[in-house]
This record gives sequence, C-alpha cells and structure tokens, in this order.
Amino acid sequence: MAEVSTILSATIESLIESKKYLTLRDIFLTMQPMDIAILLGELDESRLPLMFRLLPKELAAETFIEMDSDEQELLIRGFSDAELKEVVDELFVDDAADLVEEMPANVVKRILQSADPDKRKMINEILNYPEDSAGSIMTTEYVSLRPDMTAEDAIKRLRRTGVDKETIYTCYVTDNNRKLVGYVTLKSLIMAEDETEITDIMGTDIISVTTTDDQEEVANTLSKYDMAALPVVDKESRLVGIVTVDDAIDVMEEETTEDIEKMAAITPTDKPYLKMTPFEIWKSRIPWLMLLMVSATFTGMIISSFESALAKWVALTAFIPMLMDTGGNTGSQASVTVIRALSIGDLEFSDFLKVLWKELRVAVLCAVSLAAVSFLKIQLVDVMLLGNKGITVTVNLVVCLTLAFTIICAKLVGCSLPLVAKRLGFDPAVMASPFITTIVDALSLLIYFQVASMLLGL
Amino acid sequence: MAEVSTILSATIESLIESKKYLTLRDIFLTMQPMDIAILLGELDESRLPLMFRLLPKELAAETFIEMDSDEQELLIRGFSDAELKEVVDELFVDDAADLVEEMPANVVKRILQSADPDKRKMINEILNYPEDSAGSIMTTEYVSLRPDMTAEDAIKRLRRTGVDKETIYTCYVTDNNRKLVGYVTLKSLIMAEDETEITDIMGTDIISVTTTDDQEEVANTLSKYDMAALPVVDKESRLVGIVTVDDAIDVMEEETTEDIEKMAAITPTDKPYLKMTPFEIWKSRIPWLMLLMVSATFTGMIISSFESALAKWVALTAFIPMLMDTGGNTGSQASVTVIRALSIGDLEFSDFLKVLWKELRVAVLCAVSLAAVSFLKIQLVDVMLLGNKGITVTVNLVVCLTLAFTIICAKLVGCSLPLVAKRLGFDPAVMASPFITTIVDALSLLIYFQVASMLLGL
Repeated sequence: MAEVSTILSATIESLIESKKYLTLRDIFLTMQPMDIAILLGELDESRLPLMFRLLPKELAAETFIEMDSDEQELLIRGFSDAELKEVVDELFVDDAADLVEEMPANVVKRILQSADPDKRKMINEILNYPEDSAGSIMTTEYVSLRPDMTAEDAIKRLRRTGVDKETIYTCYVTDNNRKLVGYVTLKSLIMAEDETEITDIMGTDIISVTTTDDQEEVANTLSKYDMAALPVVDKESRLVGIVTVDDAIDVMEEETTEDIEKMAAITPTDKPYLKMTPFEIWKSRIPWLMLLMVSATFTGMIISSFESALAKWVALTAFIPMLMDTGGNTGSQASVTVIRALSIGDLEFSDFLKVLWKELRVAVLCAVSLAAVSFLKIQLVDVMLLGNKGITVTVNLVVCLTLAFTIICAKLVGCSLPLVAKRLGFDPAVMASPFITTIVDALSLLIYFQVASMLLGL
Repeated sequence: MAEVSTILSATIESLIESKKYLTLRDIFLTMQPMDIAILLGELDESRLPLMFRLLPKELAAETFIEMDSDEQELLIRGFSDAELKEVVDELFVDDAADLVEEMPANVVKRILQSADPDKRKMINEILNYPEDSAGSIMTTEYVSLRPDMTAEDAIKRLRRTGVDKETIYTCYVTDNNRKLVGYVTLKSLIMAEDETEITDIMGTDIISVTTTDDQEEVANTLSKYDMAALPVVDKESRLVGIVTVDDAIDVMEEETTEDIEKMAAITPTDKPYLKMTPFEIWKSRIPWLMLLMVSATFTGMIISSFESALAKWVALTAFIPMLMDTGGNTGSQASVTVIRALSIGDLEFSDFLKVLWKELRVAVLCAVSLAAVSFLKIQLVDVMLLGNKGITVTVNLVVCLTLAFTIICAKLVGCSLPLVAKRLGFDPAVMASPFITTIVDALSLLIYFQVASMLLGL
C-alpha cells in the first residue's frame, strides 16, 4: 500500500509539473474521495487549490469532507463565494455541521452565509445539541413517509427527493404530529405490491434514541441491533433526525481510542498522532504523570519508615520491584477486563458482587500458583545458583506470602474501582493500570513490611 | 434498562407459570430478535425449548443466531430433524458457518445434514478459509447483475431473488467469467430510467478484498470508505462473496477487545467475561504474569549488586518505586499511543524516524518538567516538611537526574518496540505497559546506580 501510494504521488507531481491537468482529472475520476483526499494531503500546500478545482462538483464535495481540517481551512480561504457555495450545497447537513465546528469564527461565518436558509437552519439546530450527543452527530436529511401512502407512491417520492437524503434504505413513517410510528426498508417497499399501504408493511418495533443520549450509547445500540440507521427523536417522540452506521463506526473508533488513551494515563485529544506537535503531546501526557509521580510520595514514606529494618535485612530490598510489578500487573488485568466489559455493555454495576466473587477465586488461583513458582525460583536461582546468602528460607517465605496477599488485594481493587467509578458517574477507563499501580504499590509495601515484622521480628 | 428487563423477566416467568402462551407469543412479536435472545437467556434452561417454539419461523431463526452458543447447542439437541431444518433454512450462510464453527462434532453433523445441498456446499466453502480471513466472515448470498441488464430487469430480479440475500442495497456486476466489473447501488437503480443499462450507471472504482485478507483489514477498509458491504474476490478477481457492515462492526469490536487484552498482558479469549469460569480466566492471565514475574529477577539482581551502597545511602531506596513507576507510565503512554495509531492505520513502520524524533522531543519536555517538579517536591516535602535528614541536595540531584534520563529512555523504548514488532510480523499490542514496564524497571535501576556512583562516589 505505502509503496503504491508513493509511486502515485510521484506520478501526480510530475503531471503537475508538465501541466497535464486533463490527465490528472482522469486519474482522480477513477479514485475514491477518501484516496483523493489522502493524495492531495501529501502534496505541497500551494498545489492544493489548483488540484481541487480539477474535481467535478460532487466529487469535490465528497473529497473535501474527507480532508484534514487544516487543509479544509486552506481551501475555504482560497475559495470565491460562488465556489464555497457549490461545495456547501453538496455537503450533507451533518458533515457541514462537523465542518463548522472545526473552523475558526471568520471561516464559520462565510460557510453559514453561503448555505441556503433551510440548510443554515438545520446546521444551527445540530450545533445547538451538546457535544457528543445523538443530536450533534445526526443528520436531518432522512426520508419520511406517511402511513397511508402506497408502496408505489413511496417509491415515486424516493425517486423525487432521494438524491439529497443520506440514506433511502430505511425510511421513517411519521403521523400528523411528526411522531415516529414505524419504519419501512426499501427492500420491503421493492418486494411489496404497488398498491400495498405503508401501514401494512412498516415495522413498529422501533428502536430509537433521544437527541441528548450519549453518542457512545447510539453507536452501541446500532451495533447491537445490526441497524443501518437509527432514528433520533425529541422529548415528545417526534422524529428529528437519523444517525447512519458510517457515522456510528467513526464514533466507536473515536470512543475506543479515548478509552485506550485514558487507560494509559493520557488526556484524549481529537488530533491524529502525526499531526500533533511535541508540545501538544506533552500537554496531553503530563498531568497524569505529574499526579502519579507526586502520589508516589506515599510509597517513599512507607519505605523510609522501615529504613532501619531494611538496613538490617538488605535482601528484602531486592524483591521490592518484583512485588510491586506483579501486584500492578495482576491489578491491571482485572481493571482492564472490567473496563472493557463495561464499555461494550457486557457488565453493569449490578453485577458488582458477581464480579467480586469471580475475581476473588481467580485471585486465589493466581496467588497460589505465582507464590509457589516464586518460592521455588528464589530457592533455585537466587539462593543456589547466584549464591545470595542473605536470602534465608524465612526471607523467601516473607516474599512469597507478600506476593500472595498482594495479588489478592490487587485483583479486588482492580475489579472494584472501575465499577465504583461507573456508579459514581466517573469514567471507568481512568481506573486502569497507572492508577491501580499507584494504589497497589503502596498496598504491597505495607503488606511486605507487615509480614516481615511478623516473621522476621523487625 | 436493567430494571425494565428485570420487570419483563418477572412478567414472562409468571405468564409461563399460568401457561398463557398466546400472550407470550404476542409479547415476543413486538420485540427485536436480540432482545428476545437476551430474555430467553435469562430464563431457566428447561423453559428455553418451549419458549423458542412459540416464535414464528423467521423470528425464531433471527433470535437463534443472537443466542449464546451453549443455548444454541441446548436447543439443537432438543430439535427434531424437521425443526432443525426449518431454522437452518432461515439462516444466512455466514451465520450458519459461524454456528457450525462453535458446535461440537456430532451437532455439526446434524446441522450440515439438515441444510440443503447448495447451502451445505456454501457453508463448507466458508469453513475452508483460514480463521479470521475475509473468506471466513463473508456471505455468499449477494446479488449479482450483468452489465447489459436494464434497470427495470435488475429491479425485477431483485424482487424475485432478493428475499434470500443478505443485502440488496449494493449489487455487484460480473462478466461472463464471474469477474467483478462494477457495482450498482439500489439507490441508483431506483433513480435511473427503466431502460437504462447497468453498465451506464454502475460504479467501476471498485474497492475489494481477497479471501485470504485479514478480517481486521476488511473492517478497516469498510470503515475507511464508509461502505455498507465490501466485495470479496479470489486470486483470479472472481467475485466469491461479500462482507456486510454489521459483521465488520463485530470484527472491529472483537479485534479491539483483543488488542486491549493483550495490552494488559491477558491472552485473548472469545468468551464474554461473565461466561468464563475462574479457572478459564486464570488460564488467560497466568502465562504473562509468570513470565513477567520471573523476568523481574533481573531488577532483583541489579539491586542485590548494589546492596552495600544502598546500606550506606539508605535514603536512595525510598525513591526506587517512584522512579520505576514514572518510567513505566511514561513508557506506556508512548507505546499505547503508537499501538493504537498502528491498529487504526494512522502509522506504519516507514514513519519510524518521524515517531522517534517526535517522542524524543516530547520526552525532553516531560523529563525537564517532571525532574524540576520532583526536585522541588523532594526539597519542600521530604526534606523540610517530613524532616528526612538522609536526603542531601546531592541525593536529590541523583534522583532527579535519574528521573530525567529514565523518562527519555522509557519514551524511546516505548515508541520503538511496537513499531519493530509490527515490522517483524509480531502483534504490536503485546509491547504495551507490562512488557515496557519490565524493561524500563531494569533500565531505571541501572541509570540510578550509575548516576549515584558518579555523584555520591558509591
């Protein structure tokens, strides 16, 4: 893939040099809008407007919407008012709303001025919904039918108005008050006799979301029921828009990336990695690093308060990293499993006790097997092979008992915190590895010195 | 949601008690197959076959495919041959193939016997493709048209054969040798004049995958081009099947869960968390825990070899957890960012130097800011507030210099390993937090004792 696109870029560059614009246009005509956008994005910025003008109107709009926002801004700043109007006219309302959200104020003004009044109104409506809500990602360009229409009427209507709709494959049936009463697929319209009434073929088992529902819920619902589009209704169950599956996929990808970033103690951003400056990356990473570093003061204090004991039993120090890491790893496994299950809807807070009981049993299995292996390993490798005289059998026992207790605590903390966070309305994803590690570190040290006091009489 | 479903379960239970089967059937008729499957899954197993038989044929098949595999097995074992045939007849080929893959051998035999010969052949074809390949997730029930058909002919054909096809919204145009030459959407068929030839309205900018392509690539392609279905061709570019968007979404969800599990040092499984026994969970988690625990031997050895120095400068021990954790966290941030960017196609190995240079600059920013804050914090909190006399300014300097160097190493290791893994054909997701932490732990200790030797003359 990469090699082919490099060859193509070189071809394009030399065609531009030799001003073979018609050839270029012919090449673009064979390509998908997404690929044209990627290709144009790799060109020198100064060539962008000229290349873009080679595209026919509809393809130009489709390509435009796939571009990065800085390239879109560059193009808009170079557009005449007429050119801008042509592009905006071709955009679906939800894409236009996305565009408006990403542009600086003076560009937004020009875009809204170039949209016709109807479209401007629809864009503004979408912009008024809270960020990440169903309303903010829906489109208002759907097909609505009346229950008393015949299949033939409906298809005629589709032929007349369908060009401007984002999907015609699911049509929505509304009553006189714009209330959603059913849906009908184009498939059933095609299969039906011409004179069949919509009311006889429409489905009434409606799955819908309201404008203020979270976009993640919208995507999960669409995926759960394998739907191609999901109707969005207002508080009076009047149909106001639809979310199509392609937008839902984008939402899923975006939300997953956010979850993964939060799990790695990164503040999520919308920008792709390669587009971010080092300073922006630093800003997204430093807050959690700072917080976690400062909170490590506690582990330091615990160790300090056992300084004299550690000076006496120097061998104990060598096992601190192993105990902390294993505790951290076991805890993360539990927390990450629970976080993912929560986000794909496999778990809810009401499963709390079930999860706790399951993790307790897993923890005991892990504790016993890891402690046994660790005991043998220390005896065979550290004592016999490496000849470390400081490690008595009692010291080894202290280490392995600590390991076992730490693992049990870590699993229980790891599985509980995300569920509790969810219950309290926080994002469970924050309760992942780095956070759990910090807590488990302190716990493991406390257990270590407690067990050591008892067995070694510190 | 949870509360409503509990109420509904109770209603269903009492309707079963009082044998109001017609009422039950009416309730099921208002519901989505997925919801019926969830509801039936919550019932006592002994009630399942009876309830399932209440569903009309098509709804029964649609519900069946949404059930968990153990419930499906239970039902099949109770089915008469005629009943089994009814369900299998209604299943799409790709769903039937999925079913066959999950059932034990004797059940598989019965399923294949009850399928008609054509369907059996198609199921077997799909089963022959490698696991997780495009071939294994495709369906062979697509609509194919000829280039010289008219729009009217095509729609007539759809009306006749469309019922059994998984989607009729994108139809594929093939030549006499079954080679894929174009595609046409139902939308363009509907919009076209009756006598227009397919060849004049079909799109020829075909995006397709081959049968052996990885399912993740299939899902990414579908999502990138916002397609509702993606054609699958064999090595001679003959059309053999299609992958629809709903299956692609399932693949995306499955692959993401796998990535997240691998990042948390868990061996991925297909089973939902609540369905797994503690022993199965233990099996998926213990290998990495064991490996990481044993590899911590190195950190132990490093500490052991500096035992006498640590006994002299006891204050140094207290900062080991902070240094290790901060190193681990900064490293994970870099590795997770790169892993995610690789998996959504934002990065490739060819970006290696770009990534390294970016991370180096981020690392310097992080190193300087964290080291400075750490120096101040230690001076103000540990020395002045907590009165730890062991921490001289030189000790503090050792800690902060180590912190800075560790952060730079951790970021560079964190961003490189996933890219290198990708290049070598391993899964980058394995190079996440636990793995990076183990390496960075050893690195940070080596740096620590090196810096301490130089500044404190150990």
